[in-house]
Amino acid sequence: MNTPLIPTAILRICCPDQKGIVAAVSGFVFERGGNIIHSDQHTTDFQNGAFFMRIEFALDALQISAERFEGEFSAIASRFQMQWNIQYTSQIKRMGIFVSKEPHCLLDLLWRWKAGELAAAIPLIISNHPNLKPIADDFGIPFHCVPSDLDTKEAQENYVLGLIKGHVDFLVLARYMQVLSDALVSQYPNQIINIHHSFLPAFAGAKPYQQAYTRGVKIIGATAHYVTAQLDEGPIIEQDVIRVTHRDGMDQLREKGRDIERTVLARAIRWHLEARVIAYENKTIVFG
Amino acid sequence: MNTPLIPTAILRICCPDQKGIVAAVSGFVFERGGNIIHSDQHTTDFQNGAFFMRIEFALDALQISAERFEGEFSAIASRFQMQWNIQYTSQIKRMGIFVSKEPHCLLDLLWRWKAGELAAAIPLIISNHPNLKPIADDFGIPFHCVPSDLDTKEAQENYVLGLIKGHVDFLVLARYMQVLSDALVSQYPNQIINIHHSFLPAFAGAKPYQQAYTRGVKIIGATAHYVTAQLDEGPIIEQDVIRVTHRDGMDQLREKGRDIERTVLARAIRWHLEARVIAYENKTIVFG
Amino acid sequence: MNTPLIPTAILRICCPDQKGIVAAVSGFVFERGGNIIHSDQHTTDFQNGAFFMRIEFALDALQISAERFEGEFSAIASRFQMQWNIQYTSQIKRMGIFVSKEPHCLLDLLWRWKAGELAAAIPLIISNHPNLKPIADDFGIPFHCVPSDLDTKEAQENYVLGLIKGHVDFLVLARYMQVLSDALVSQYPNQIINIHHSFLPAFAGAKPYQQAYTRGVKIIGATAHYVTAQLDEGPIIEQDVIRVTHRDGMDQLREKGRDIERTVLARAIRWHLEARVIAYENKTIVFG
Amino acid sequence: MNTPLIPTAILRICCPDQKGIVAAVSGFVFERGGNIIHSDQHTTDFQNGAFFMRIEFALDALQISAERFEGEFSAIASRFQMQWNIQYTSQIKRMGIFVSKEPHCLLDLLWRWKAGELAAAIPLIISNHPNLKPIADDFGIPFHCVPSDLDTKEAQENYVLGLIKGHVDFLVLARYMQVLSDALVSQYPNQIINIHHSFLPAFAGAKPYQQAYTRGVKIIGATAHYVTAQLDEGPIIEQDVIRVTHRDGMDQLREKGRDIERTVLARAIRWHLEARVIAYENKTIVFG
Repeated sequence: MNTPLIPTAILRICCPDQKGIVAAVSGFVFERGGNIIHSDQHTTDFQNGAFFMRIEFALDALQISAERFEGEFSAIASRFQMQWNIQYTSQIKRMGIFVSKEPHCLLDLLWRWKAGELAAAIPLIISNHPNLKPIADDFGIPFHCVPSDLDTKEAQENYVLGLIKGHVDFLVLARYMQVLSDALVSQYPNQIINIHHSFLPAFAGAKPYQQAYTRGVKIIGATAHYVTAQLDEGPIIEQDVIRVTHRDGMDQLREKGRDIERTVLARAIRWHLEARVIAYENKTIVFG
Repeated sequence: MNTPLIPTAILRICCPDQKGIVAAVSGFVFERGGNIIHSDQHTTDFQNGAFFMRIEFALDALQISAERFEGEFSAIASRFQMQWNIQYTSQIKRMGIFVSKEPHCLLDLLWRWKAGELAAAIPLIISNHPNLKPIADDFGIPFHCVPSDLDTKEAQENYVLGLIKGHVDFLVLARYMQVLSDALVSQYPNQIINIHHSFLPAFAGAKPYQQAYTRGVKIIGATAHYVTAQLDEGPIIEQDVIRVTHRDGMDQLREKGRDIERTVLARAIRWHLEARVIAYENKTIVFG
Repeated sequence: MNTPLIPTAILRICCPDQKGIVAAVSGFVFERGGNIIHSDQHTTDFQNGAFFMRIEFALDALQISAERFEGEFSAIASRFQMQWNIQYTSQIKRMGIFVSKEPHCLLDLLWRWKAGELAAAIPLIISNHPNLKPIADDFGIPFHCVPSDLDTKEAQENYVLGLIKGHVDFLVLARYMQVLSDALVSQYPNQIINIHHSFLPAFAGAKPYQQAYTRGVKIIGATAHYVTAQLDEGPIIEQDVIRVTHRDGMDQLREKGRDIERTVLARAIRWHLEARVIAYENKTIVFG
Repeated sequence: MNTPLIPTAILRICCPDQKGIVAAVSGFVFERGGNIIHSDQHTTDFQNGAFFMRIEFALDALQISAERFEGEFSAIASRFQMQWNIQYTSQIKRMGIFVSKEPHCLLDLLWRWKAGELAAAIPLIISNHPNLKPIADDFGIPFHCVPSDLDTKEAQENYVLGLIKGHVDFLVLARYMQVLSDALVSQYPNQIINIHHSFLPAFAGAKPYQQAYTRGVKIIGATAHYVTAQLDEGPIIEQDVIRVTHRDGMDQLREKGRDIERTVLARAIRWHLEARVIAYENKTIVFG
């Protein structure tokens, strides 16, 4: 899985399971000069199931243009009733980040981004608080404080939409403590990644560390998921956990939790950027 | 923490936090010839908190009888408003096991018991199904199938109570799929250990693996807890988790989960037997 | 990954990486009526690398016999210089188990086997000690104590070879504390699975828990690997670890370690049985 | 374990195990007005063992000065042949950081330090390369590039010693790729913390990720340890691990490893700062 040095395309497919899909897709790519580097499939059930495929191929010897490739692929796609999507490593995705007051997830993302771990552009950071602006400034990224003095929630969201529309490909809520409206969410289906500071579905909603402390759990966690209209109910991309003991007070839970939140969010974003994730029926397939 | 070869006593204490407790208790033990082998304390908060202590000491050079020791300790105990309990390693605890149809937790306990990992007596196994009787027979342990043809739930429980009363010190629900009545639970406060096949509070109630599969979590778990009147709400003793992926169907979740259930339940029982657990306000302190 | 109810074949391939392999193989299977259920590929490097493939397909609609399928596949195989192997789920593999005195791994395997977790036949158990015979008897499996009164190591091995030759497909060393001769090992290349009670390469050789205790590590582990002529140096199939603390003496390390040994060995055997493992240059590819 | 708001002292003790130590120490503290907040003990063996104690007590009601307290404690200490040490939370420790070219551990430490997770002063950062100076500048910490044009290794070390002597209490090697001389190490016994990027003792020495990749392990790790004269052989403070697969090339191992290195090093430093660690016979006791 070493990073290829030559440009590749990643084709993701979802369709009803049936005979011959793998052969048809891999044959199609091969016949046009695409050298398949990775290919993963998954079928949800043995019979009457859904079929998922992620196929990455090198573009250097492709004998036709990408446009023509996509055009010709449509024929196969309709034959198998496919939903499909193609992504090119040469096209850097633009990631908009939303934050509130907590800096750890934002900082971690920006450090990884600077270290070359996240192959994305970051056109802007949006917050409902001004306090993280200096971090954005340090990294030279435009920071927008959503004016809370606007009259209505609707006005705020319109302002936000004006900032992001056409300028970002997906959104990351890096501890953004506001609920997005259904209107905004519906414009970015499976393109908004949130980090929730608990192992969902445990401790959904507000103050999960407080909830965890009160319940006396021996393990805490974090969950990265796509945002849907239902709060904390969207398809889970990644989760991780860490042990706690009776010695850990609220401060310790928060401190231990921060380390987990950072790594879980970073993994989910990386997988999203590498087009490894397919959301389906409120779950995700994550190809390794 | 090698097992001592000479008999020891374990004193557990819970009281309001105040100055001088550690000095008073350790001085008391020392003055009577008790050699302290382990001593652990915990305070819930820095001010106005609760204080917990577990102190294990060798009995070989104790200058007075255990009875007299306990009697004299009462004076300290009332001075500090202590709830306390003393347990002797020479007194083997009697563990009653409840099961339904699933054998893996029962088998694991019996294997560990036979291998000497669990220092308990097992006077009986009770089940609402007959199918695990051959396992009990293999290990030479009396097996009682609770007659389901008794007229009422109350009659069944009375039958069970008749079997266990005075014959067991604590109960283990090793995948027992029936709810115990409040009447029975109230007779064994913090003396009934249940294994629930999820990381509580996620997926409480019935069919947790089905729930986990439907929600699409990336980690599943198991929880050992003391049973209280509220189903799946009692103090958590231990939890552990294992990763799952989109490739894992219901069967795989159950299979992976079984390994976690076994180890989590075994740890909880061992800690309970070693008097490491103190339940307090629906949480547990577990001394290492 | 739910267990298919109809018979399948699993084809494993290893060859130099080159264009068109996936298309050729999946096309070949499809054209003969094989419905591909899983297909995984891996390439070690982007250029001049080795290519690995595991493809599982249903046999119910295969239009030719398995023999003819294999015969025709040879043509593709030579074109791509493939090493390949085909395994049928209808052919139950025969697993020979070697043990010494420690029962936990043996017991765990037999329990899982009885519970249906390991789809294998167990024709015999071989030991250099008589003490685990009662366990073999319990499960109705022939137990052979290798006569230690034979004159030479060579004579012992010949005796062992006589027992296993033609009667087992692969061997599991479930805490077998003897070194197998190169002669025996060479007859079962990547068909002998050993469990070593450390996270190799740390603590290879004798008494790994003693070594771990002396070194003061904070984590101990277990490693399942294929046996090669070099002791503890063969391709690693699976590893897992568990935390220990300064409180854990030698007995606790052994006790905690036993739980890890059991699960690691069981996973490795299951993956071996499901033809998920390809050994290559002293490493393994393990398809999920 | 919530952070106390009033100043405390932490007393660490190591001595031959014998009766009455806990009573004597806790009585001593209590009689002088010290309120014990935490108290932990550990004995290596049941008989003829070594005894370790860490006791934290509040200073607000102490009836004598710290100097006098220490003076009077000497009497007990000699009676029990104790090695002991007392640390005050009011005295901030000074941490010198050594780095080479890799920024991730340094950055992580500085972020945590800025976030208030590490209660230390950082008087200086020393490196054998100039490239991380901008990071030091960002955080306003003096950065010293050890002049590599000095004639000898000895001259370099004398230069370093001149920088740190009297100005730091302990040293952190945050991916410092040079070996310190025995002369320097001997001046900071158990006061130099190194992060090694493998689960020691596996893959000691140079290029551990390369070694891990070549060996084909399924788990990689990181180890924080005190530095001794023997490279990578000092007492281990903390270790952690992360799973890898055959898909992970060298770049992925390094990337996954970085996350583990950061957290393991941060934990070790925090425990060192909180006086939780006692090194003894090339192991550590780490009180929770």
